[in-house]
Amino acid sequence: MKSTIITIGDEILIGQILDTNSRYISQALNTLGVVVAERTSIGDNREQIIQTLDRALTSSDIVIITGGLGPTKDDITKHTLTQYFGSELYYNEQIGEAVRTLLAKRGIEFNDLNRGQAMVPRCCTVLNNAHGTAPGMWFERDGKVVISLPGVPFEMVHLMEDEVLPRLREQFTLKSIVHRTMITAGIAESILAQRIAQWEEALPSVLHLAYLPAPNVVRLRLSAYEVEKEEAAQLIDTQFELLRAIIPEAIVGFEGATVEEAVHRWMIEHNKTLSVSESCTGGAIASKFTAMAGASAYFQCGVVSYSNDAKCDILGVNPDSIAKYGAVSEQVAIEMALGACRAGHSHYAISTTGIAGPTGGSVEKPVGTVWIGIATPEKCFAVCKNCGTDRGQIIQRATAYAIKLLYDSL
Amino acid sequence: MKSTIITIGDEILIGQILDTNSRYISQALNTLGVVVAERTSIGDNREQIIQTLDRALTSSDIVIITGGLGPTKDDITKHTLTQYFGSELYYNEQIGEAVRTLLAKRGIEFNDLNRGQAMVPRCCTVLNNAHGTAPGMWFERDGKVVISLPGVPFEMVHLMEDEVLPRLREQFTLKSIVHRTMITAGIAESILAQRIAQWEEALPSVLHLAYLPAPNVVRLRLSAYEVEKEEAAQLIDTQFELLRAIIPEAIVGFEGATVEEAVHRWMIEHNKTLSVSESCTGGAIASKFTAMAGASAYFQCGVVSYSNDAKCDILGVNPDSIAKYGAVSEQVAIEMALGACRAGHSHYAISTTGIAGPTGGSVEKPVGTVWIGIATPEKCFAVCKNCGTDRGQIIQRATAYAIKLLYDSL
Repeated sequence: MKSTIITIGDEILIGQILDTNSRYISQALNTLGVVVAERTSIGDNREQIIQTLDRALTSSDIVIITGGLGPTKDDITKHTLTQYFGSELYYNEQIGEAVRTLLAKRGIEFNDLNRGQAMVPRCCTVLNNAHGTAPGMWFERDGKVVISLPGVPFEMVHLMEDEVLPRLREQFTLKSIVHRTMITAGIAESILAQRIAQWEEALPSVLHLAYLPAPNVVRLRLSAYEVEKEEAAQLIDTQFELLRAIIPEAIVGFEGATVEEAVHRWMIEHNKTLSVSESCTGGAIASKFTAMAGASAYFQCGVVSYSNDAKCDILGVNPDSIAKYGAVSEQVAIEMALGACRAGHSHYAISTTGIAGPTGGSVEKPVGTVWIGIATPEKCFAVCKNCGTDRGQIIQRATAYAIKLLYDSL
Repeated sequence: MKSTIITIGDEILIGQILDTNSRYISQALNTLGVVVAERTSIGDNREQIIQTLDRALTSSDIVIITGGLGPTKDDITKHTLTQYFGSELYYNEQIGEAVRTLLAKRGIEFNDLNRGQAMVPRCCTVLNNAHGTAPGMWFERDGKVVISLPGVPFEMVHLMEDEVLPRLREQFTLKSIVHRTMITAGIAESILAQRIAQWEEALPSVLHLAYLPAPNVVRLRLSAYEVEKEEAAQLIDTQFELLRAIIPEAIVGFEGATVEEAVHRWMIEHNKTLSVSESCTGGAIASKFTAMAGASAYFQCGVVSYSNDAKCDILGVNPDSIAKYGAVSEQVAIEMALGACRAGHSHYAISTTGIAGPTGGSVEKPVGTVWIGIATPEKCFAVCKNCGTDRGQIIQRATAYAIKLLYDSL
């Protein structure tokens, strides 16, 4: 079963907003067992809407459209669809009353524009929008379905969950789509691909492998389309088990479980505590941990010691070490990690000191050089890593590498 | 001048990743004066790539494609484009050496897969990728341009800025596109539309108005396509001034530079320094500032004082204040801000202490309660803000609000 997602709105085409609706709908349809063949974003333009819809209906059974249902003049989706399906608008009393009640709750008077929102095409099934003033619409033609939803994300999500997904499940016989993603760290994509080439070669034809590289992390996704769910899941598990024997040191976890989540769980389970001291990563490591609910159980403190004074005053780094080895050095990384443990009274600590650029590099220590320190109850050490050339990338890579280094030391 | 953006990757169609590339490219093209007529996301599928490209070339002068250029088997964009343009691949020594050097810096050996990345079609102009192993490619046909870029966001951004945008500027005579967005708050979209109906009616035909509703906020965007920049900007300013007379109480501001960028510039220009102490935001504020190149000129230190001990030991918060008022209180926020100034020897400081949830809330201090402290050379104060119900949202909102509060105090 194939589908196309069409998001309508000039704000998408000019990059004013990020199109999160497409992602949510993609995930929801995949979970349901519907393949998303294409996603298209177009403007609030009559001809473009008609052309795109024509094309979508030749290749897909299900078309989901979001956007262009507001009360104002720039929104033309409803009128265009009414015309496309050769229908006409009428005032739907029930929607009118629902909108009036919703607005009254917010102290807003019902006006002509709201009245316009209760006008719907005769040929569609109205999908009740409990969270907004624009109803959803469900059209059918030749066994194919076109669904129009408002573009406001939370209204769209509620309509999908309450109205669209249950109806699709009822109307179509759907097989499952199964995706599972293994997270590896510390091996470059090209090296990884070489090491697992034989395994990849021998994959059952029903499984599709994809590589998703990110700084210091490569995710391996196995997908099976339109299959029996349990069977496919088992097949994937078997293949991942085989992979575990080939790259045992590189497997960090599975999606849903990032490295920081693994550390998070370990700290809570083992009743240990963590502090971090960051220079070049500037708070990125601390915010990764503190973004997770329950972090206060183990996360003691983070110090973003950007200045040398802060390194010495707060973390107790010896000013002589900075003078002798430089702020970006093994010695300072170690002293920062020990200092974080001390300052936070914690069992474990991570430290980073490096050159995020674009300036500050030298021949011996080019931009991208990062020393990462790890302190555990048993030892304290530091590792030097070249984290690339772009400031954002350097921060991301150093963050990922540092957390992985701690994880390996637990 | 019209363009189409095509993003390739099954990970987009199944919703595994958010397509941020499309948004960045949309913004960049708009700034350049190129209209984005359509954005399409498709899978790593040969027929689909060819069909989509065919279609894009009938309606657009410029087509930008991202994704599918990795070294692994699932990536087929380069082979498909080579065939599409009737060309053949050859080994480009220069790219090969650049990739070898880049990998050597990271301690990775150059293998056959990397060799494959240095194979490029004869008919294209190679765009040098200084930050990754997949080069960009620039094809031309009948005066139209097709550009293929890697899907890794930061590599794509560097290629756009260093290679693509300068070439487009050189090759095409481009007029400007001007968007300006006024932010209103407190008036429902339908009421707002009614109040400004006459103004909207009288807008010059070159200006297009769009309404962008969000909870409690409606953004009004005026756009002018393919115009003289100064003239259009002036026209929009005049219209917004007229609007100010109609809805004076509702105008919150204009969309533009981020607040942290404004603070960043101010600190550098005024030679002042900043430190932050964060509890519930957990490093998010520090990482916003340190993500910007040049932050080391003013950013002294950040302390993520998650534990009460860290608040007292590092920031000098009085334990009696915590005992008497609680860690989430005006008094502690003020002491944290003052402590951050002291610890970082800085002129300004931000502090946050709140309940990010999902647990830890109470009747008096529900989840979402955040005290934000600001210290300046003249004063120190704290403000309480309810930042919502979801942990991620609370961290984001508190971060945004805290930076705005500092900005207002400069």
